[in-house]
Amino acid sequence: MQCDVLVIGSGILGTVSAYYIKKNNPERDVILVDMLASPGSGNTGRSNGMFRNTFTSLDNQILADNSIDFYLEAQSQGADLGIQKIGYLWLLDEKKASIYEKQIQRMRENGIDVNVYTKTELEKKMNFQPSPASDESLVMGLKPVSEGVFGSKCGRLAPEKLVSFYIDKFVKIGGKTIFNHKVMRIVASALKSLGIEGEPFVWQEWFFSAAETENYSKIYFKDIVVACGAWTNVILEPLGLDFQVKSKKRQIFSIAAKNSGPLIELMNTKGFNELGLLPMVILPVAGIHFKPVVESQEFWVACEDEINREFIDKPGDLSIYNAEEEYFNLNIYPVLKEYFPQFSRPEIKSMWAGLYAYHLPDCIPFVQRESNMVIVGGDSGSGIMKADSLGRIVDAAYRREEYAKLYNGTYYPVERIGTKNRKVEKEEWVI
Amino acid sequence: MQCDVLVIGSGILGTVSAYYIKKNNPERDVILVDMLASPGSGNTGRSNGMFRNTFTSLDNQILADNSIDFYLEAQSQGADLGIQKIGYLWLLDEKKASIYEKQIQRMRENGIDVNVYTKTELEKKMNFQPSPASDESLVMGLKPVSEGVFGSKCGRLAPEKLVSFYIDKFVKIGGKTIFNHKVMRIVASALKSLGIEGEPFVWQEWFFSAAETENYSKIYFKDIVVACGAWTNVILEPLGLDFQVKSKKRQIFSIAAKNSGPLIELMNTKGFNELGLLPMVILPVAGIHFKPVVESQEFWVACEDEINREFIDKPGDLSIYNAEEEYFNLNIYPVLKEYFPQFSRPEIKSMWAGLYAYHLPDCIPFVQRESNMVIVGGDSGSGIMKADSLGRIVDAAYRREEYAKLYNGTYYPVERIGTKNRKVEKEEWVI
Repeated sequence: MQCDVLVIGSGILGTVSAYYIKKNNPERDVILVDMLASPGSGNTGRSNGMFRNTFTSLDNQILADNSIDFYLEAQSQGADLGIQKIGYLWLLDEKKASIYEKQIQRMRENGIDVNVYTKTELEKKMNFQPSPASDESLVMGLKPVSEGVFGSKCGRLAPEKLVSFYIDKFVKIGGKTIFNHKVMRIVASALKSLGIEGEPFVWQEWFFSAAETENYSKIYFKDIVVACGAWTNVILEPLGLDFQVKSKKRQIFSIAAKNSGPLIELMNTKGFNELGLLPMVILPVAGIHFKPVVESQEFWVACEDEINREFIDKPGDLSIYNAEEEYFNLNIYPVLKEYFPQFSRPEIKSMWAGLYAYHLPDCIPFVQRESNMVIVGGDSGSGIMKADSLGRIVDAAYRREEYAKLYNGTYYPVERIGTKNRKVEKEEWVI
Repeated sequence: MQCDVLVIGSGILGTVSAYYIKKNNPERDVILVDMLASPGSGNTGRSNGMFRNTFTSLDNQILADNSIDFYLEAQSQGADLGIQKIGYLWLLDEKKASIYEKQIQRMRENGIDVNVYTKTELEKKMNFQPSPASDESLVMGLKPVSEGVFGSKCGRLAPEKLVSFYIDKFVKIGGKTIFNHKVMRIVASALKSLGIEGEPFVWQEWFFSAAETENYSKIYFKDIVVACGAWTNVILEPLGLDFQVKSKKRQIFSIAAKNSGPLIELMNTKGFNELGLLPMVILPVAGIHFKPVVESQEFWVACEDEINREFIDKPGDLSIYNAEEEYFNLNIYPVLKEYFPQFSRPEIKSMWAGLYAYHLPDCIPFVQRESNMVIVGGDSGSGIMKADSLGRIVDAAYRREEYAKLYNGTYYPVERIGTKNRKVEKEEWVI
């Protein structure tokens, strides 16, 4: 089998990339290949499905803001992307508030909509316990909430619907998909082969020529896009390439609100958004956060998981996808119930885990060309909300353009987000 | 067992770090632990044992120049470090020469001694073939040498002697060593433990408390230094820490000069240094390089090995240390014999492989504090030549000083070479 462009990975980033390459180069054969049975059914489908434009890094602001505008416009034109603009509400203690102050000012200067609510304002709007005072909370050292930062152009979306949206468009303009085919290896070949075993030698010019799938069939290509998320190292390390991607297990716990008066009341908190729903709330401890899922009357709860949670270089064992109820009970629940007593004696309806692919130097995604390969990844837990911009940048990198034109007309320099002459500043607001 | 400071790894970086911490904090118990039977017998002992101050990055220049001055002074005072200041000679083709031009000018502005020799000057000094013209060389696309760049404050040193030098000093001032003890795991503990299984929880403050060795004995410490080179991820990934270190196998082939008139003549090329020896020579293709080892009448030959040589995240299999004769025959020899026909029909006396620990974002080492841990590593093939400076920086980081005083009196900002607020520029001259 052969094609002009092979895209590996039909998570959100691979799917969007395949679509923009096919759209802007309609004469090219573009194949999107994935090891799973359907698009977006790996870690994209396991994600929390949120979007926000409230980042400290200008690059993240641009990537997210343009993508969100595109998604909002698509939904307003009839596409069902499951968007609910509920907003993000960061609850800060005094120390965090003073750290965030300058960052919030910079966001405002860049046109990002953020409001700061005082503790008193928050107490009027929302039923919670800003100053936990139980014996347990004192032992735990929980700090009082001193203010809240609210981002309005933020909310929920449905990852599987977003993937479907792009894959339908991709197929409609002639893109091809192959599922249930795991790429085991990308082959590098000598540009001027002498037919000797072991090529390319160190003195030879080389290019990437083919992808070998599990059953040893080969897909030959002229160019290749690698969008493998947490599997990036599995594909690239054997070639001697590295892009500083490492993964961590992250868990989501779905708490039933249905049979609990206080939780239903909390879910329907008015005054933050036009939907009359509680926003996504982030507590001042360990990034513990929860969002209302109104259609099924549940809250999805999760947290940051930094120390003592192993980094994974290359996923192998599928047990990584098992969530741990004990983890919720010992790490999340003791904090959650102190600030929001509505969560006392919670009923866990379901729980699952996924792999969160960090780009560790700065927690900002990268798009980099290497010979006839373009690699995209390292989205650090916020790829879905930047996907439309990243797909356009991948297409620009494929065409060897200096700039990518994003949805709102911004010309974004491709090299800026590359790994070789990278010019982005570290992102400080990572959950 | 317990101590004030535990240093893991008695390669060159761990040994120097242990020495400077003990020297500047004599009241502290410092233990240096290593999995092997003697210091420097891992990848430090497998290295090529070279030093140079010719780097494009100002930070590498400072780190190396100060260390080299310290080593030269120590040897002039009677220490045997095996130093031979033979120099480094980069042979460049036209394209490389034009890329290097500005970098060389910047080195000169920073006081680094570099000379540029024209092709004609090189031909007078040294017996070689600047313009390979055989059928094979044409097929291979070998470019003519257009100039040579010579660094004089560069040369050989003996890694095992340098390690012995520091470890003797360390032990003399009361430092303790433990060999044949493999650290399997570093334990993180809650600062205010509640005695519950699974601590530290995400809402707890924590610190590193102990190192568990292979036989499950524990070494408790107040502070820990991790200097594990290629094993950095094995120790740190389980803790959820990452420092962008990855390793590659690198091989050295020792070619006998003894029974070859032309090779002995090449070895004794005059006019480059006071020793009347050929310098380390780097060819314009794939970083293929060789150095004379006069005491045993051999040349050590190696090369860069980028594409298709896998990156290793966590070393496991010891077969990594097997060198491949076929690799020399197909990758190095065809190029070597075209520029230096003296190497025709070479006799490989011995060959070995080691792990080269890259710091991939910029190929410059890092020293970073994380809680009560200091991590040093990522020396990217040039740790030995920067070790004295890095050891002093580790000590400064241990003492939470803002600056480290290097050998020549330079005050170097510790944060500059950290991973969190890193300020170094990418190194361009990496072999």
